[in-house]
Amino acid sequence: MALNIRGFAAQSATTPLAPHSFERREPRADDVAIDILYCGVCHSDIHQARDEWGGSRYPMVPGHEIIGRVASVGAEVKGFKAGDLVGVGCMVDSCQHCEACHQGLEQYCVEGMVATYNSVDKKDGLPTFGGYSERIVVNDKFVLRIDPRLDAKAAAPLLCAGITTWSPLKHWNIGPGSKVAVVGLGGLGHMGLKFAKALGAEVTLFTRSPSKEDEARRLGADHVVLSTDEAQMKAVARRFDFILDTVPTRHDLNPYLATLALNGTHCLVGLVEPMDPPVHAANVIFGRRSIAGSLIGGIAETQEMLDFCAEHGIVSDVEMIRIQEINVAYERMLRSDVRYRFVIDLASLRDAA
Amino acid sequence: MALNIRGFAAQSATTPLAPHSFERREPRADDVAIDILYCGVCHSDIHQARDEWGGSRYPMVPGHEIIGRVASVGAEVKGFKAGDLVGVGCMVDSCQHCEACHQGLEQYCVEGMVATYNSVDKKDGLPTFGGYSERIVVNDKFVLRIDPRLDAKAAAPLLCAGITTWSPLKHWNIGPGSKVAVVGLGGLGHMGLKFAKALGAEVTLFTRSPSKEDEARRLGADHVVLSTDEAQMKAVARRFDFILDTVPTRHDLNPYLATLALNGTHCLVGLVEPMDPPVHAANVIFGRRSIAGSLIGGIAETQEMLDFCAEHGIVSDVEMIRIQEINVAYERMLRSDVRYRFVIDLASLRDAA
Ligand SMILES: [Zn+2]
Ligand SMILES: [Zn+2]
Ligand SMILES: [Zn+2]
Ligand SMILES: [Zn+2]
Repeated sequence: MALNIRGFAAQSATTPLAPHSFERREPRADDVAIDILYCGVCHSDIHQARDEWGGSRYPMVPGHEIIGRVASVGAEVKGFKAGDLVGVGCMVDSCQHCEACHQGLEQYCVEGMVATYNSVDKKDGLPTFGGYSERIVVNDKFVLRIDPRLDAKAAAPLLCAGITTWSPLKHWNIGPGSKVAVVGLGGLGHMGLKFAKALGAEVTLFTRSPSKEDEARRLGADHVVLSTDEAQMKAVARRFDFILDTVPTRHDLNPYLATLALNGTHCLVGLVEPMDPPVHAANVIFGRRSIAGSLIGGIAETQEMLDFCAEHGIVSDVEMIRIQEINVAYERMLRSDVRYRFVIDLASLRDAA
Repeated sequence: MALNIRGFAAQSATTPLAPHSFERREPRADDVAIDILYCGVCHSDIHQARDEWGGSRYPMVPGHEIIGRVASVGAEVKGFKAGDLVGVGCMVDSCQHCEACHQGLEQYCVEGMVATYNSVDKKDGLPTFGGYSERIVVNDKFVLRIDPRLDAKAAAPLLCAGITTWSPLKHWNIGPGSKVAVVGLGGLGHMGLKFAKALGAEVTLFTRSPSKEDEARRLGADHVVLSTDEAQMKAVARRFDFILDTVPTRHDLNPYLATLALNGTHCLVGLVEPMDPPVHAANVIFGRRSIAGSLIGGIAETQEMLDFCAEHGIVSDVEMIRIQEINVAYERMLRSDVRYRFVIDLASLRDAA
């Protein structure tokens, strides 16, 4: 017996999102059924809804920054009970037995993680559907606890934008004494500033618009460097231990590499494109620098990040929308006209019924 | 009072190397004067003699893989005495007080290392001249001890090709259990195979020519993968912890990146060109991979490498030439027609006098 669910879906790469009813599986013994309260809107929702990365499946219900309340749990679920505030991020399953899964890095599962939407469930082969909907059913290993001290609305983006920036900062041991630069001030970038600052680093924002300086400082930046200003770029040559690059569009990494100290790392978290113009090898050879990439984060470290946020009072800066506004929100995101993440209030879906 | 020295020099970017007399400084109190026995021939000798990297100074006496005997030492020199077998590599000085120098990483000195040739001495502002000559005068901090157990001729290439491959293998903690792949089988690549094997790694050579298989195995490879064969490349997907890429010409890194395991590093040691075709960011994001670079190695680790070589009986595979054959040797190197390093016997320079 499947559950009938209301949501918003794209029916093809070229149609706007619109109301759509679909089925979810009846919860299994290890499943948690969650009534969705809020869902953040990620750039990858747009990319996938419009099939910009290829391989999109329709109808598609996007959304992988999900906050909700447990409605019911399967017989074997120990960690959650009805009424708990919980989160679901970008993944809902993985093989659970490969080396990456054993390390708690399910996002790098050799069989491929099962994404929250636009993917296929391992057991029943049915498509997965995301958080632009009233309810979701998820294996308990992929459900996160949300501390009630957190503002639930503003916690939603932690599930993707948050963990995507947190994971590399932790992996590359950012802490007191680290000099970190963040490139780009959007959904990812504003979380990068908050986390780098909270972890004790000296934090710089690279930006192309001088108007962002006050905002950047409010969000945690100690310094702001105008990346279009050669003198400012020269002044920070060889300065940073770590650059967190959140820019999703093609850009030249070479000027940033020159600002890395000996053994520094330039880490890409937003780019799914060629590094074009090409990186000059001299920029990594001189200074033993690295260009790395990082993909979201594992379930255990997502929980660690959420607990850190509760402890330190960190959430996203969000603009709440009704689900009926989602297509307008997409257009605004494409113009970077959002501070800094749209979050859908799913009550709007119920009201419309 | 300066010393008059015979050598071979390029008088311009377009003239072949030819006999040339020049002056070296009278040894200072902390200098070692070395009678040169052998000098390896490095690809960067050709690049600089022909001004392919820009900024070349003429006349240029190349050569930075130098083995010789101490002729005399300055009053303050404690570590060397006349008759000692010694080596000089790519550097002859650095600032000695920056963070990199303090870490023993003089090659990354923030003021720039003083190169053995095609550079300028920090104290007298005079040009530096390399090992295609009968004698060199070098600050004692940049002179290496050569264990008499080593074959002096075959040890010469350790000073550049050796340390350039040793340093990254050590920095990235290659040892028993590591899976290492080497790209390219030239002067650097053949040392990479020997070192990776001696350090206990499981070693693979990537090559485009099946004919190199037997040679590769003799030099230490456990496996040989034909990089032009898609099936072979697929079979090693996600396999390697570390790729030591010694190729000096533009090449596509993307197929190699796909063979890196989770957290793997593709390290460039031969390329001083753009990474063209561009690297796709997905190839680093999926698998949290890194593209890094490494430049020769510090003085302390060069000594460590030389001592390791003496202990393990490791030297380069060399073809000895007379200095009068240097221009022919350059042409052969450009055709990769050398196994695996030319070394000049400087006795040929004296004979010709
Ligand atoms: Zn996302
Ligand atoms: Zn797995
Ligand atoms: Zn060299
Ligand atoms: Zn220095």
